[in-house]
Amino acid sequence: MVNSFDPAAGTNLGPRASALIERRRRVLGAPYRLFYERPVEVRRGEGALLFDPDGLDYLDAYNNVPVVGHANARVRAAVAEQLGRVNTHTRYLTDEIVDYSERLISLFPEHLEQVVYACTGSEAVDLALRIAAHVTRASGIVITTNAYHGTTRASAAVSPSLGPNNALPPHVVTVAAPDPLRDPVEDGVTAALFAQRVGDAIRQLERRGVTFSALIMDSVLSSDGLVTHPEGVLGPAVEVARGHGGLYIADEVQSGFGRLGAPWWGFSRHGVEPDLVVLGKPMGNGLPISAVVGRRDHLETFGRDVRYFNTFGGTPVSIAAATAVLDEIEERELRANAAAVGTALREGLHALADSDPRLGQVRGEGLFLAVEVVQPDGTDEHAPDATLAGRVVNGLRDKRVLVSASGRYENVVKIRPPLVFTREHADRLLTALDEVLAETRGAGSAARDTDGSAGGSAGGPVSRAGNRLHR
Amino acid sequence: MVNSFDPAAGTNLGPRASALIERRRRVLGAPYRLFYERPVEVRRGEGALLFDPDGLDYLDAYNNVPVVGHANARVRAAVAEQLGRVNTHTRYLTDEIVDYSERLISLFPEHLEQVVYACTGSEAVDLALRIAAHVTRASGIVITTNAYHGTTRASAAVSPSLGPNNALPPHVVTVAAPDPLRDPVEDGVTAALFAQRVGDAIRQLERRGVTFSALIMDSVLSSDGLVTHPEGVLGPAVEVARGHGGLYIADEVQSGFGRLGAPWWGFSRHGVEPDLVVLGKPMGNGLPISAVVGRRDHLETFGRDVRYFNTFGGTPVSIAAATAVLDEIEERELRANAAAVGTALREGLHALADSDPRLGQVRGEGLFLAVEVVQPDGTDEHAPDATLAGRVVNGLRDKRVLVSASGRYENVVKIRPPLVFTREHADRLLTALDEVLAETRGAGSAARDTDGSAGGSAGGPVSRAGNRLHR
Repeated sequence: MVNSFDPAAGTNLGPRASALIERRRRVLGAPYRLFYERPVEVRRGEGALLFDPDGLDYLDAYNNVPVVGHANARVRAAVAEQLGRVNTHTRYLTDEIVDYSERLISLFPEHLEQVVYACTGSEAVDLALRIAAHVTRASGIVITTNAYHGTTRASAAVSPSLGPNNALPPHVVTVAAPDPLRDPVEDGVTAALFAQRVGDAIRQLERRGVTFSALIMDSVLSSDGLVTHPEGVLGPAVEVARGHGGLYIADEVQSGFGRLGAPWWGFSRHGVEPDLVVLGKPMGNGLPISAVVGRRDHLETFGRDVRYFNTFGGTPVSIAAATAVLDEIEERELRANAAAVGTALREGLHALADSDPRLGQVRGEGLFLAVEVVQPDGTDEHAPDATLAGRVVNGLRDKRVLVSASGRYENVVKIRPPLVFTREHADRLLTALDEVLAETRGAGSAARDTDGSAGGSAGGPVSRAGNRLHR
Repeated sequence: MVNSFDPAAGTNLGPRASALIERRRRVLGAPYRLFYERPVEVRRGEGALLFDPDGLDYLDAYNNVPVVGHANARVRAAVAEQLGRVNTHTRYLTDEIVDYSERLISLFPEHLEQVVYACTGSEAVDLALRIAAHVTRASGIVITTNAYHGTTRASAAVSPSLGPNNALPPHVVTVAAPDPLRDPVEDGVTAALFAQRVGDAIRQLERRGVTFSALIMDSVLSSDGLVTHPEGVLGPAVEVARGHGGLYIADEVQSGFGRLGAPWWGFSRHGVEPDLVVLGKPMGNGLPISAVVGRRDHLETFGRDVRYFNTFGGTPVSIAAATAVLDEIEERELRANAAAVGTALREGLHALADSDPRLGQVRGEGLFLAVEVVQPDGTDEHAPDATLAGRVVNGLRDKRVLVSASGRYENVVKIRPPLVFTREHADRLLTALDEVLAETRGAGSAARDTDGSAGGSAGGPVSRAGNRLHR
């Protein structure tokens, strides 16, 4: 895992954290990991801030779940109020789920008329894949090379970013995601190239004797390194998938609920309409609620033949949280905030990248931004530098600014704060990043330590055009 | 689905419910079902009671999720308090998950040392199957004929109770559950018969070229009709599975957390120790939290090779709810209550069964009880009567007592109330059941309408020995 605490590194964490980590290691199974070389202990939160036991504040520029802010008062009040009334499953009649569903559906294109609730993005992806398989009577799935869609067995089977031991079954084929830094750069070509790869993948499935069922994509390809530009880049691939009789599943767990600014959903950037949409993480600001939104005919076919019931899916308490989240996004105009603060932050990142060739490209939209960390002085100006990315992430953590890294090469610094992030927060992040970049100049990462040619000055021999491509 | 509202039946539900059902039908996908011929609209709850919009109270004798009572004040306070502080995922350090995990682990046999959290029983079963497959390097699974373990693709693949369209993959083989009414009745023989069937199933997998990985069983075989007796009935089957190199996964989603009275877990009735235990529904009293408890070596093997992370699994808020649930169970002595009230309720059911041959057998332990509804006047004295079971369930609903039906033949009335159920609640249920039985006498179910020989008097030509077998 990128950015994972290594207990064997012997880092001195102080007695309190060390004791807690040791107790944790005893009772929590080995799959548990902690972030950062020096894990962060969290005691309370407020808006975009987290506080440790000493009361020190950390700027949360990473967590998309608390979309309307940590310890959001409206969510808290709504959940507490509903917990004081009732919290049954959906086989009894209640108003709230109907009210919320009507409101949610109104945010989608007309052909997406119905919703089914689950608890996690993994469950919703798992369900969407089951619906697609049932409707198409086929099993073949096309995904991107470093896709992440979940951790149930079926959703992990379409999540190669889980690592080399996460074997992909024969009904799954991967295609390289559009790479705005390393693909040919003209917009149409990038999209056409990607569509061609999807077509090739479908033919590869067919040669295996597997009929194509669906193309599933995170609408911003987060785990592939965040691809938001050019707008429409995924569109032609979706058309190819449709041409082969498959469905298009839009995974909006990352990009949904205003993360990108004005649009509620990431797929709307691509001029295409999904057959199934998967919603998750931010939906309940931390209460486990997720959903599949789909076409009535598809859900009728599936519901007629297959029994599906999720005990905790769409209970009154999770619906209360989800309702409060929509209220907050709308009344506090958080989509507009994401657009405005996101633009300011992106400009600030561009300015830093302009003066530091180790920042290879700034990407993103709204409050989902990414910075490529590269080795500009090698033979390949775009060569990823995961080591330096890790140092940036941990350097920021030491300045109490929380981000992480991702991408196929683990070299992309990922910035994805709660939507209540302000310009002041953005300035704090930019200042800290500037400092971390300065502190790592000269020290370089391993590759540059050898030849001693650490970058630093603006410009230099490498063309900076790539950085500014998608501003 | 047993006990499902049929919109096509034209039942007059009144304008309010009809309008809500129509709105619901428009926005919620076809998989959604409602309970009862006349669905129940729920507005609030308190303890073991639910209240409709008119303020009428319904006795909840069915829902195991609100184990410490609907609208439990302690759970509410704990969740609200934690929501006012922070609710991050587990890659930051927090105390609460460690405190709770130590407490949870202390309730298990020593060899079960670690826990991994998820949100739903389905996710936990899915994870347990993945762990078992990884540890055994095998995929073959043995389940009971009418098992239910979840609704993700992998957990649905071991859930034949989802119906005939829920195809079982080739790595899954079913065995008939022990049937205390229809199997040979001596205890040892029932257990030995079942173990023999499990051995046959493993050999069937081997003939398919599938290596055996695990035997997974609900510890009380709820969906197979509830099998709690004889104690130890599942033990020999587990030994057979172990002898073939497989693991034993105990699904405690139904039987865990004191449902059966004194024991925390259902598996302890069988004198066997599971390799993996799955926890779910009651764990957070309605907040979505579930878990897999397992051996350290198994989780280390899995965690070393496979990345697993559940964003909402074990968050501080769900842990707060789970902690409050343990507090309530312990301080209010709800296991002792389940044992005492359960025994009284079972005695009352036996008394009704003694005077009505249509009640074929009373089974269960603690506050998980079941009554077989049979056609005593046919050639087979134990012939299931799903029609009458449905009439009993709906008759009780009309008297505002909520239960449901289950089992392979859909003829088993299932009684599974919150653990705060009192003797007065038990009396209310028994009185209502007595009235429903009286009202259905003479009217009979379809089979008996024809020959007019509806049962009614105590005793009669059929031996009643089977009823009392497991008292």
